Amino acid sequence: MGKGRIEAFSDGVLAIIITIMVLELKVPHGSDLQALFPLAPLVLSYVLSFVYVGIYWNNHHHLMHTVKHVTGGMMWANLHLLFWLSLFPVVTAWVGDNPTASWPAALYGIVLVAAAMAWLILQRTIIRTGSTLARAIGKDLKGKLSLLGYVLGIGASFVRPWIADLLYALVAVMWVVPDRRIEAHIASE
Amino acid sequence: MGKGRIEAFSDGVLAIIITIMVLELKVPHGSDLQALFPLAPLVLSYVLSFVYVGIYWNNHHHLMHTVKHVTGGMMWANLHLLFWLSLFPVVTAWVGDNPTASWPAALYGIVLVAAAMAWLILQRTIIRTGSTLARAIGKDLKGKLSLLGYVLGIGASFVRPWIADLLYALVAVMWVVPDRRIEAHIASE
Amino acid sequence: MGKGRIEAFSDGVLAIIITIMVLELKVPHGSDLQALFPLAPLVLSYVLSFVYVGIYWNNHHHLMHTVKHVTGGMMWANLHLLFWLSLFPVVTAWVGDNPTASWPAALYGIVLVAAAMAWLILQRTIIRTGSTLARAIGKDLKGKLSLLGYVLGIGASFVRPWIADLLYALVAVMWVVPDRRIEAHIASE
Amino acid sequence: MGKGRIEAFSDGVLAIIITIMVLELKVPHGSDLQALFPLAPLVLSYVLSFVYVGIYWNNHHHLMHTVKHVTGGMMWANLHLLFWLSLFPVVTAWVGDNPTASWPAALYGIVLVAAAMAWLILQRTIIRTGSTLARAIGKDLKGKLSLLGYVLGIGASFVRPWIADLLYALVAVMWVVPDRRIEAHIASE
Repeated sequence: MGKGRIEAFSDGVLAIIITIMVLELKVPHGSDLQALFPLAPLVLSYVLSFVYVGIYWNNHHHLMHTVKHVTGGMMWANLHLLFWLSLFPVVTAWVGDNPTASWPAALYGIVLVAAAMAWLILQRTIIRTGSTLARAIGKDLKGKLSLLGYVLGIGASFVRPWIADLLYALVAVMWVVPDRRIEAHIASE
Repeated sequence: MGKGRIEAFSDGVLAIIITIMVLELKVPHGSDLQALFPLAPLVLSYVLSFVYVGIYWNNHHHLMHTVKHVTGGMMWANLHLLFWLSLFPVVTAWVGDNPTASWPAALYGIVLVAAAMAWLILQRTIIRTGSTLARAIGKDLKGKLSLLGYVLGIGASFVRPWIADLLYALVAVMWVVPDRRIEAHIASE
Repeated sequence: MGKGRIEAFSDGVLAIIITIMVLELKVPHGSDLQALFPLAPLVLSYVLSFVYVGIYWNNHHHLMHTVKHVTGGMMWANLHLLFWLSLFPVVTAWVGDNPTASWPAALYGIVLVAAAMAWLILQRTIIRTGSTLARAIGKDLKGKLSLLGYVLGIGASFVRPWIADLLYALVAVMWVVPDRRIEAHIASE
Repeated sequence: MGKGRIEAFSDGVLAIIITIMVLELKVPHGSDLQALFPLAPLVLSYVLSFVYVGIYWNNHHHLMHTVKHVTGGMMWANLHLLFWLSLFPVVTAWVGDNPTASWPAALYGIVLVAAAMAWLILQRTIIRTGSTLARAIGKDLKGKLSLLGYVLGIGASFVRPWIADLLYALVAVMWVVPDRRIEAHIASE
């Protein structure tokens, strides 16, 4: 069993998730500029989720690069990750529809935590098959900081939802900005 | 005609089916926790169907692995299987919308039976082209147990729909848990 | 420019078209058997269009097999074909919603004719680049019979729509049943 | 990191964008010819956007052909381009629903400008990695003419929206008609 098809299937699912989210951007009912205003929070939440799926796609590449042979457990760990990512369109739309509400912001964070957990499980499953991944990950400070950001965000949802959104956005920025500088900074700590 | 494109096309269709199902999870209308409650049965039926599509994708890999050259009949047998799997999103949503009704649970089982039949036809079509598949399948006790579970589930739909759901879930679990132990157990019978 | 990406893109678009059609099968509102009855014509039109997209996918393989190098014109001729095929979901749903009406049946036939024309243009574009396709096609009696069936169907739509549906179905059957026998029969004429 | 997966992912997203747009072509409510008339502007805007996505897909091939190794920055520049292209379905439907309104026509142009900017950023990112792209692009008169067309179109939206649509269509035509003649003409200037 080669890893080509697991990559192709994951690429397919991630490509569909990232594109399907745009279906939640309903066509405005009016035809003037004001008709666009209610879309603003939806667009913002769409941008955030687009970036998150991009991050997962990006990291998925690097992860799969270290795989030598695919096992049944790896396929299921991968499907488990895709399951949580497939919930992004729904929670993104819920946050976009209710930008000032607590539960949507909290649920967004919960799905982020679940996806991060699924990612860790996939990593461990791959390491157990004897890949070179363990060395590449190291202390995984970035992953731990992300989890901290998500959990703080879930808590903040019930105080000030915009703080939760800010925290989720900061975690995303941490993954997008050129890796080396941050990694050097983290490594020096 | 190589088998690369039949695999790529099947992967594409399966990736779309598995992701499109999430579109049935309509964004909740309210913004509090209670707004999520009506989604619970939809999420459960989504999880079950996600696992089933995952199982078919997984097994499809192994099946295609034994194919040496693709015939026209094989392509149609494969499309026939994809047709039944493409009905998963509709029946999943129907079950999720009516978790306590008989006919949705029964129709879900009927589609499971049809997909299983399409799978058997695809297997036979491949075996007829002289692949090594016949030996790999053996008595196919797992396939027979699945069919039994589906048929019992269809019957149970008209008595207690939740028993049908439980039976469908048990069959799925049988395919997901590490193969070797079950196969060893089945082989020893 | 290799032909791998034109195949991958076409496979992707065809996989999405074939799967997106199922979104028109709206989840029934009731939960009993009667709730399914209004879906019957939609399911039938879905089956027909599923088979047609399958036929195009199948033939697309054989067509691309004869291509030696991809030109800009070929890419646009291919996109032109995909455009007409992308209208299948809409016309399929229109026929399914109005199984006894004339215009839906006629429009279905018109899209079939347009797709067949786009196919001929793609064939000519490929032949002009010096492929071995011209010999493989021969007199293309099957293609001519298909066009005749579509045109008769469009006419029949305004007399008895079900005759149009029957004609479209017969053309599809002609392409699906094992090629060799029909081709031998046609070759002997 | 090979460029195969960045191509496969982009192909997937572009294939989904081009096909998802057709979902905005709602099935007509009536069953006669008149029921189709309100769809006319939607179909026209769909055709235009279909051609634009086709142009981007086409050019993306040529662009990727010059890439030697993929960097993290390139992947994000590529995702950034895909983000703007993913907004095509929404703005296409808004223009199609309001063919005589100013803001939809202007927003369509703004998304075209944003996608063109994202394209330029992707080009620069690739050139910086030392590809042969710089020579292949030359003065990029076609790209500059496109930007001019878009900006004039945005302005025209507030005077006569149909002039904006015409300008966007002319830019598309410039990219579709056989490259060599136009390029020779531009080169001679």
